[in-house]
Amino acid sequence: MKSVTIHAPATIANIVCGFDILGLCLHDPCDVMQLSLSDQPGIRIRHLDDHNLPVDPPRNVAGVALLAMLDELDNKPGFELVIEKHIKPGSGLGSSAASAAGAVVAANRLLGDIFSKEDLVRFAMFGEKLASGVKHADNIAPCIYGGVTLIRSIFPLDIVTLSAPPMFVTVVHPQIEVKTSDARQILRKEVLLKDAIRQWGNIAGLVAGLMKGDYDLIGRSLEDVIIEPVRSILIPQFDEVKRQCKAAGALGGGISGSGPSIFMLSKEETTAATLEIIMKDIYTKVGIDFKTYVTTVSAGGTKTINND
Amino acid sequence: MKSVTIHAPATIANIVCGFDILGLCLHDPCDVMQLSLSDQPGIRIRHLDDHNLPVDPPRNVAGVALLAMLDELDNKPGFELVIEKHIKPGSGLGSSAASAAGAVVAANRLLGDIFSKEDLVRFAMFGEKLASGVKHADNIAPCIYGGVTLIRSIFPLDIVTLSAPPMFVTVVHPQIEVKTSDARQILRKEVLLKDAIRQWGNIAGLVAGLMKGDYDLIGRSLEDVIIEPVRSILIPQFDEVKRQCKAAGALGGGISGSGPSIFMLSKEETTAATLEIIMKDIYTKVGIDFKTYVTTVSAGGTKTINND
Repeated sequence: MKSVTIHAPATIANIVCGFDILGLCLHDPCDVMQLSLSDQPGIRIRHLDDHNLPVDPPRNVAGVALLAMLDELDNKPGFELVIEKHIKPGSGLGSSAASAAGAVVAANRLLGDIFSKEDLVRFAMFGEKLASGVKHADNIAPCIYGGVTLIRSIFPLDIVTLSAPPMFVTVVHPQIEVKTSDARQILRKEVLLKDAIRQWGNIAGLVAGLMKGDYDLIGRSLEDVIIEPVRSILIPQFDEVKRQCKAAGALGGGISGSGPSIFMLSKEETTAATLEIIMKDIYTKVGIDFKTYVTTVSAGGTKTINND
Repeated sequence: MKSVTIHAPATIANIVCGFDILGLCLHDPCDVMQLSLSDQPGIRIRHLDDHNLPVDPPRNVAGVALLAMLDELDNKPGFELVIEKHIKPGSGLGSSAASAAGAVVAANRLLGDIFSKEDLVRFAMFGEKLASGVKHADNIAPCIYGGVTLIRSIFPLDIVTLSAPPMFVTVVHPQIEVKTSDARQILRKEVLLKDAIRQWGNIAGLVAGLMKGDYDLIGRSLEDVIIEPVRSILIPQFDEVKRQCKAAGALGGGISGSGPSIFMLSKEETTAATLEIIMKDIYTKVGIDFKTYVTTVSAGGTKTINND
């Protein structure tokens, strides 16, 4: 049977000041998935990991994304999906987005690339809806397009790819649980206009800094006066990680998605490596288990390998 | 006595979605000013127009800007300033900014360009403080730098120039009075987070669209869900102007600064000319006096001519 292997990468939503509109794609970690066409109708899902995720398609993020795609096809093929998750669910690194995006990118390849990337984002967002209750694309879009993406609008969907200079990314995932739905609920429904103005100045600065390749401007713009002050309370040692990393030369950084992972951007690889040591030290001292990654922004997004 | 002539252009603050952070510089209209060094200490101001603006330096926007500059000099020269205003005060086209910016750019030239552009913005903002009660730079910065400018932050001052594709600008100034301070007071102090997110998606889209030269993205991003719905109530026929202009091919547009002028951006000169006819028709029918301009975004900002 025709089959493809997919590497679906981790992503960082928000990028500090761009709540709900910005995301970037990482090289690592990466989920590996194998999707095969099947003569037997329906979708069968198998996991090669021990995360105990549901395998019933309507209850699985990859499953609902595939179902959304099948909804638009007259001839509905059958699929066998094998998932090996390396992006831990609940890490804030776009684990559900990688499953949903990977599945629809793979299916599209098997079907002869009949759908556009924007269509794929639309299908994969059903996975996000299942995972967090909200259709958002700030992990899905960078996972499919690669690099840094702006989601100008969800309804109607408007995705803009942004050029960016080379950057290293250091991530620490303290092994505590922060549910996306909880992280959303603690946000205030209203914000001060003066804070919103400061935030949109930073967002404009970040977009301009990325497109100009101006590292200093990127660094100055990585400030979030609205979401981070509320959400960071849920992440032990957040302020300490940020303070020490910035002092060690990080451009800036903050909460990855809704947390609990924290990411820091650097211009130099040596800085990124130093930040990892700082992060390890901080969580080792307080006795919280953690995992770290030193990686780069990936221009490519989800990668497909034909198995034939 | 050494003297310079200055052309200080009109500017459009906010550019629809970028309240308090974005501004662009126009070719027309333009104030003309002549500044001369004088052996006699102090600043003497004379107007060649009939706007009845104060000539006492601490009560004149150009005067206070010059005083702020003199504050940082040990040897304080005397100045003779002659102002011929073509940008009507209260038009929403950066009239006070042109006076303040023009005066300090002229003074800096006479003093041998000892101050940076950022210093000049800092001095000229004292003029804005006098005119509207608030130190803002979204007219001052484009007036001094030219083109499209982002004011990422006022404290500390952080100005970013943004590249932009060629654009035509059609402006109508209905001859009614909207005070900047009133236009500021009617704004709510709090905004919905969901509206703020929509706004910062548009701001990011506008910055990306300008820098990519993507006219469609610029057009889609020219949407303001926070300020315009409140302020446009103060401007008769606003909705009608916008609706007809967009139907006639304008990329988009909105209130210039705090109004009452309305501006529309176009890709083509013929479109810009059509929009002028539409604007004239609308205000002629309702019997409100108006003035229109068809111009372009000026890359240069304030221009200095040495008089020797």
